[in-house]
Amino acid sequence: MLDVVTFGEVMGLLVAYPGQPLRHANDFRRQIAGAEATVAVGLARLGHRTGWCGRVGEDAFGLAVMDTLRGEGVDVSRAGVDPGAPTGLLVRDAHPHRRITVSYHRAGSAASRTGPQHLDPGYLRSARLLHLTGITPALSESCLEAVREALRIARDGGLTVSFDPNIRLRLWPAQRAVPILRELLAGVDIVLASREEARLIAGREDAAAWFLEHGSRLVVIKDGAVGAHATDGRTEWAVPAFDASVLDPVGAGDAFDAGFLSGWLSDLPVPQCLARGAAAGALNVQALGDLDGLPYPDDLQAMLNKEIEVDR
Amino acid sequence: MLDVVTFGEVMGLLVAYPGQPLRHANDFRRQIAGAEATVAVGLARLGHRTGWCGRVGEDAFGLAVMDTLRGEGVDVSRAGVDPGAPTGLLVRDAHPHRRITVSYHRAGSAASRTGPQHLDPGYLRSARLLHLTGITPALSESCLEAVREALRIARDGGLTVSFDPNIRLRLWPAQRAVPILRELLAGVDIVLASREEARLIAGREDAAAWFLEHGSRLVVIKDGAVGAHATDGRTEWAVPAFDASVLDPVGAGDAFDAGFLSGWLSDLPVPQCLARGAAAGALNVQALGDLDGLPYPDDLQAMLNKEIEVDR
Amino acid sequence: MLDVVTFGEVMGLLVAYPGQPLRHANDFRRQIAGAEATVAVGLARLGHRTGWCGRVGEDAFGLAVMDTLRGEGVDVSRAGVDPGAPTGLLVRDAHPHRRITVSYHRAGSAASRTGPQHLDPGYLRSARLLHLTGITPALSESCLEAVREALRIARDGGLTVSFDPNIRLRLWPAQRAVPILRELLAGVDIVLASREEARLIAGREDAAAWFLEHGSRLVVIKDGAVGAHATDGRTEWAVPAFDASVLDPVGAGDAFDAGFLSGWLSDLPVPQCLARGAAAGALNVQALGDLDGLPYPDDLQAMLNKEIEVDR
Amino acid sequence: MLDVVTFGEVMGLLVAYPGQPLRHANDFRRQIAGAEATVAVGLARLGHRTGWCGRVGEDAFGLAVMDTLRGEGVDVSRAGVDPGAPTGLLVRDAHPHRRITVSYHRAGSAASRTGPQHLDPGYLRSARLLHLTGITPALSESCLEAVREALRIARDGGLTVSFDPNIRLRLWPAQRAVPILRELLAGVDIVLASREEARLIAGREDAAAWFLEHGSRLVVIKDGAVGAHATDGRTEWAVPAFDASVLDPVGAGDAFDAGFLSGWLSDLPVPQCLARGAAAGALNVQALGDLDGLPYPDDLQAMLNKEIEVDR
Amino acid sequence: MLDVVTFGEVMGLLVAYPGQPLRHANDFRRQIAGAEATVAVGLARLGHRTGWCGRVGEDAFGLAVMDTLRGEGVDVSRAGVDPGAPTGLLVRDAHPHRRITVSYHRAGSAASRTGPQHLDPGYLRSARLLHLTGITPALSESCLEAVREALRIARDGGLTVSFDPNIRLRLWPAQRAVPILRELLAGVDIVLASREEARLIAGREDAAAWFLEHGSRLVVIKDGAVGAHATDGRTEWAVPAFDASVLDPVGAGDAFDAGFLSGWLSDLPVPQCLARGAAAGALNVQALGDLDGLPYPDDLQAMLNKEIEVDR
Amino acid sequence: MLDVVTFGEVMGLLVAYPGQPLRHANDFRRQIAGAEATVAVGLARLGHRTGWCGRVGEDAFGLAVMDTLRGEGVDVSRAGVDPGAPTGLLVRDAHPHRRITVSYHRAGSAASRTGPQHLDPGYLRSARLLHLTGITPALSESCLEAVREALRIARDGGLTVSFDPNIRLRLWPAQRAVPILRELLAGVDIVLASREEARLIAGREDAAAWFLEHGSRLVVIKDGAVGAHATDGRTEWAVPAFDASVLDPVGAGDAFDAGFLSGWLSDLPVPQCLARGAAAGALNVQALGDLDGLPYPDDLQAMLNKEIEVDR
Repeated sequence: MLDVVTFGEVMGLLVAYPGQPLRHANDFRRQIAGAEATVAVGLARLGHRTGWCGRVGEDAFGLAVMDTLRGEGVDVSRAGVDPGAPTGLLVRDAHPHRRITVSYHRAGSAASRTGPQHLDPGYLRSARLLHLTGITPALSESCLEAVREALRIARDGGLTVSFDPNIRLRLWPAQRAVPILRELLAGVDIVLASREEARLIAGREDAAAWFLEHGSRLVVIKDGAVGAHATDGRTEWAVPAFDASVLDPVGAGDAFDAGFLSGWLSDLPVPQCLARGAAAGALNVQALGDLDGLPYPDDLQAMLNKEIEVDR
Repeated sequence: MLDVVTFGEVMGLLVAYPGQPLRHANDFRRQIAGAEATVAVGLARLGHRTGWCGRVGEDAFGLAVMDTLRGEGVDVSRAGVDPGAPTGLLVRDAHPHRRITVSYHRAGSAASRTGPQHLDPGYLRSARLLHLTGITPALSESCLEAVREALRIARDGGLTVSFDPNIRLRLWPAQRAVPILRELLAGVDIVLASREEARLIAGREDAAAWFLEHGSRLVVIKDGAVGAHATDGRTEWAVPAFDASVLDPVGAGDAFDAGFLSGWLSDLPVPQCLARGAAAGALNVQALGDLDGLPYPDDLQAMLNKEIEVDR
Repeated sequence: MLDVVTFGEVMGLLVAYPGQPLRHANDFRRQIAGAEATVAVGLARLGHRTGWCGRVGEDAFGLAVMDTLRGEGVDVSRAGVDPGAPTGLLVRDAHPHRRITVSYHRAGSAASRTGPQHLDPGYLRSARLLHLTGITPALSESCLEAVREALRIARDGGLTVSFDPNIRLRLWPAQRAVPILRELLAGVDIVLASREEARLIAGREDAAAWFLEHGSRLVVIKDGAVGAHATDGRTEWAVPAFDASVLDPVGAGDAFDAGFLSGWLSDLPVPQCLARGAAAGALNVQALGDLDGLPYPDDLQAMLNKEIEVDR
Repeated sequence: MLDVVTFGEVMGLLVAYPGQPLRHANDFRRQIAGAEATVAVGLARLGHRTGWCGRVGEDAFGLAVMDTLRGEGVDVSRAGVDPGAPTGLLVRDAHPHRRITVSYHRAGSAASRTGPQHLDPGYLRSARLLHLTGITPALSESCLEAVREALRIARDGGLTVSFDPNIRLRLWPAQRAVPILRELLAGVDIVLASREEARLIAGREDAAAWFLEHGSRLVVIKDGAVGAHATDGRTEWAVPAFDASVLDPVGAGDAFDAGFLSGWLSDLPVPQCLARGAAAGALNVQALGDLDGLPYPDDLQAMLNKEIEVDR
Repeated sequence: MLDVVTFGEVMGLLVAYPGQPLRHANDFRRQIAGAEATVAVGLARLGHRTGWCGRVGEDAFGLAVMDTLRGEGVDVSRAGVDPGAPTGLLVRDAHPHRRITVSYHRAGSAASRTGPQHLDPGYLRSARLLHLTGITPALSESCLEAVREALRIARDGGLTVSFDPNIRLRLWPAQRAVPILRELLAGVDIVLASREEARLIAGREDAAAWFLEHGSRLVVIKDGAVGAHATDGRTEWAVPAFDASVLDPVGAGDAFDAGFLSGWLSDLPVPQCLARGAAAGALNVQALGDLDGLPYPDDLQAMLNKEIEVDR
Repeated sequence: MLDVVTFGEVMGLLVAYPGQPLRHANDFRRQIAGAEATVAVGLARLGHRTGWCGRVGEDAFGLAVMDTLRGEGVDVSRAGVDPGAPTGLLVRDAHPHRRITVSYHRAGSAASRTGPQHLDPGYLRSARLLHLTGITPALSESCLEAVREALRIARDGGLTVSFDPNIRLRLWPAQRAVPILRELLAGVDIVLASREEARLIAGREDAAAWFLEHGSRLVVIKDGAVGAHATDGRTEWAVPAFDASVLDPVGAGDAFDAGFLSGWLSDLPVPQCLARGAAAGALNVQALGDLDGLPYPDDLQAMLNKEIEVDR
């Protein structure tokens, strides 16, 4: 019944206006953040039936997050509200050419208390694709167990699994992250990783080969302003990045995932999937916040056609 | 008594702040929009006596539009207020590298009810130049008749006529627009068109030649970020575009027209007219909205001199 | 399956920041407007299963409206998107003690093209209560027919009907509005009207009696800053208004309706329904726009308890 | 040809957003300030032909001020631009119930260099009424001479003179202000003063009597939130203040003058003039800045009728 | 060397713009929050040498908090930066007549890890007055110990102690708060409490008597919009509240404390201390956030004199 | 005790939001401006003990400026408040590729009344480095004398002197500026100048040689978007500019000075000093206003490492 199912932490986001470094920022805009939720919204906007089944606190930001996902058409019928823990909060600034400063307030969040018991196997199995990221297993032991359980359900149910390692070294050090990500990524159908992440996990330069050796069917390497490439071990494909006037680079990778997976769900050839990923990323960085720039089908098509003219 | 006279639809404009795609935009800034009014304000700022003689509704936006034009020094003594129809409204977003979404609310507007009877021949004949665009004839039959009548008055009175086709395919389909624009543009002294528009109207690659064959004295082709070129059939001139950090690309073409015609009215050679057009366009796209970036003489001169230093 | 069903026009709303009269306003905030949608959102926030089954255009504001309603938990599974007509737009200012200026752009809107054929009788009959307003029948003949058909379906299905005349004299003059509203309101179970509206429709001072004579079971008269009262012909109840620091008075009446009906749906005694209506109204006028101030259960309870202290 | 003529200093205004005391304010809005210009705009909005003939510097704020006045329909054909001196600038905060902090930057301004030589006697004599304030004579010796000359021209030309002392003790101490204001106000037809100002100038409690003894025909005493009263020596009239939700109290007195004089120019009885003054003041304090809240005829009428309902 | 010393938690504050309930708020302004820091800034603005010796995390908000306090002239030479724990964060909305929703993110904050070992006895003893609140002992066991230690040092050093219970039931339930506050408040020289707090701690209606019986020399009861009163057991004094147009009621009590203690430090009679407290409270609620409205001496004097006129 | 001491004019700054040319700007943000203060804040953020000993007026902006400098950790214990003169004010717009319009209001400012008598020789001598600019000597004769006196004190005390000519042709014409700057710069240890400034003062193409001939030990030439180079007569060093997305170019040169001098104070080799200067400049132009973008050590390090990734 669903095309895609995903879960993970979604947080309130307070992002400073461009040009205001965090320590000196006065003006903030509220949105939501969370890698899996960004992918879910991106896929829903592109017309796919998408379910997000994570957990939030019973507070203003948690309920606002649910309103937003529901409004975007993401199915939240299996998402949970935890009356005993707060929703996480992420405060950051936004610059095109300056390191972004992030302040996380996610310790003890409702999301971090998620465990395998919160997953509904039947719900997960109703989807074609399970999308996961490496943020969730970094949040807590129970979250790691939930990810392991989700992988098990997906494999049993014959779902395709896509996984973006999204390594967050402030959540876990590399020496803890790498072995766990190796375990989780082994056998994942579609790997979507940045070049640095792929290299860190694989522990060698030809990272794609490592993933293919460990059971992946398709490895997609995102290389920021350069472009992206993919391989299934037999063929390699590459696309250059699209022109963009960057307002806020955060969320580009998740938007890429949404664009790529949207193509995959529509059975498009890999080069078209890559182009959709690159176009979605280029569109997303032109808006402030993680979600606002995620494209609808006509936005994506216009970018793919390099039509940036006014529609009038 | 006037240097330039023009008329056409002027609308209230609500433009979303940069980085907010229309469907997700929360914050809007109010200005005014309308191709002929933009040219009129651009020419008034550059010191030319300019009259705009269109019509607005008797409502907050219509009266605000009149305040703005009057404040800019555009003569509105022959402009009309129609108590029986609203002023049009245009809502849009603004992005440098993403298709701009526009929502028009102009059906049945006061402007669309303009007809030949609203033109004061003596007023028109008091100007050296009549500037028209292809938006007005697309609004209604009576508007088309008003344009025809204005062309007749201009020819009888010996005015120079400049015409920017400004094709709006959401107002009329190409199969209706092209024959009418061919009729109206035949014999126009100065054609100011984008490359695509020129090609569409001429129906062939060497569009400039078509216009010259049909009676134009000077054809100016605007080619966006590349630059612009012009020909009178004997000589060709070209200028590259100026560097600009685009905030809102809308209005670049109208600003170009104002810069170019300002040079023409000052009897400058064509290359200088082209450079003024290109500079005015590059200045206008650095401000939000259609009008705010239109230059005054010292802004234009600084851009022409590539002096972008602080004046201190 | 639903507690309440409603339909009517929902529009994009652009509201000027407080203290900026429309003709001089520069800064606008985008929200949504529409009396029935406001009631629907108000009831959904208070925990009732609510369905809105109107129609919007296939444009940025129409789709944003659908996102908003869906996000609020209002069922829009039977709402329609009309690809051939725009979503209406309402632009206005907001003042506590100055007449509010409104600019409507709703001519030819998707909503005005709604007709009886767009109603799903089974869907309507699945609700306990049908809520209607006097705006919809003023929009077009087909809208009037849709309201008549909805009343018929409700009566056949044994639904309770509530009706707020919400007279808009800019949509129809009193001589047209009054006879139609008399026809439609005859037999309506719950009438929710302002004092002026009740008097205008009834044509006499003891307006409540007129409604009771014409078949209503309960007549609620809203009297702004004074309070509200109700009668069923045997008993009269009254509540004073709550203290409020008005930021934007628009939407108070619709918020009242939501508060009152929420009490009625919970089988509360009339005085408690009235108090909930008054409290919801007082909360709504403290936020900019029609929807932002609509209360959740704990906001409403705090206002009823006159607890305006910080929750910390 | 003119109804009213006035002159004086007009400055750029930067007003902090409400709730931001000046020392801690981050966000400012730009408008224009100047008692006589406020009166001129107020009268122009109410339909009177009004001329302002002061002087500004040839800088961004000076030229913006001219744009604004011209846009409002105030005749500035006799106003001057002084290339050798800056336009004054006023920076302040805005609070309903806290002393407003003002920072003036007007030393050596173009306005302060105005002298009798800048007045065009024929232009002044073309008006019915000359309006002056006590700010101009405080700016410089040449400004004082210009005011004396204007009074002479007005008397010779048979103009009615209205004068608002607008005492600014930061510009001149009471011991200098009082004798000069006594000299200038002697014989002025219409005195418009606050209670404190009247008392300070008259040097006694029954200040109105002092003005009447010194040749005034009508003395209007503005008493803030209480109301206003007037006397011609035979009759006394009084009006209470209108309800208002104060956003920015600055400009109330000048708005009152505009409302009152508008009634006088329309030959209305004094009580109606007073009511128009009180209504204009109450409307003006509900908008940020000196000008934005000045009413148009329908705003004024709605306030006089205490219709603060939405116009829909 | 210091007049006053204080410590406690100071947090980053993100406050929604007025009229935006937290769940629907988009726009936030960053400031700082913390009851003791508010009192410290209030006293520093009024000219008293004030030291704040709490602890923050080594992050953008913690360092910004230190910048702010230092900028205000509060001595932070003994404040500490904890590299191992974050600065707390408080997100809330602001309404005059609606319950304010607060979201705290202070679990595990640097402040909560403060203990007696972080107090410098010599530094504390250099002040005349130690000001404490009931928030700090609610944060953690070590914080409670720090408060006990500070009280010991103050008593040994002969300092006057003022204490505002500032009960936060979301930090500790009444059954835990009351016995601890009774212990801490016993013998405190100056108690500054709201009526509800005094009653809750004393457990009886004549709460002031309870505090006097337990060793206090002066009990000040703050009663919001009504006013405040004080007693030393022999005399009772009372002041009414000042008029204020409330923008954000949060911080009124702390501003009152600063105003009151400023009078006390200047050896003013109790009624003047009360009036200063009431005036400071009335000024603070007219600005958004906890600090912006805290008065400087001339602001306070103008409010005491009820001079709310513009200073010009 | 100090690393660096400096003095000069610091002003209130009101900067229009990007995209709003000054004549049409509505929205302004308040900060502070002043070349020496920018350098002082830049050095303080990078960890150096810095003193600023200029003078401000006793007004909202002057006191706010002092709050800001104190908050930044700049020692202002020797700065003065002049009760008899205002603080200067600078109003400007901000564009990446358009001449910036500046409106100064500094005539008669407290800063311009600074003289040698305001310098504390012992305080100056306690620093390692004295930093001066060519703006101060342009303000008034007494300011010029103060600069001469400071140079004398520095030489007597063995301080290193750095000097940025910062030529402001609106303050003094070249024919006055050049001879005075030649006098003042002769013998200055470190010259930090733009290419145009160096050429104008030296009066020849090989400007660096001129400075070395006149006693400088190190000449640093800033060449905007190209980079910077330096020479001590024996060696030449150069660095390219860093990538930056310019929001507001003003302050780049002062940020460069701070970055360069920070390296010099840390005894880094010249190429590293140049790189720090270039990085600081590139960071500063990405924030609105003169100060907000000045880096802290980790920001600078990240830019030097070209790490513009998010820190998460």
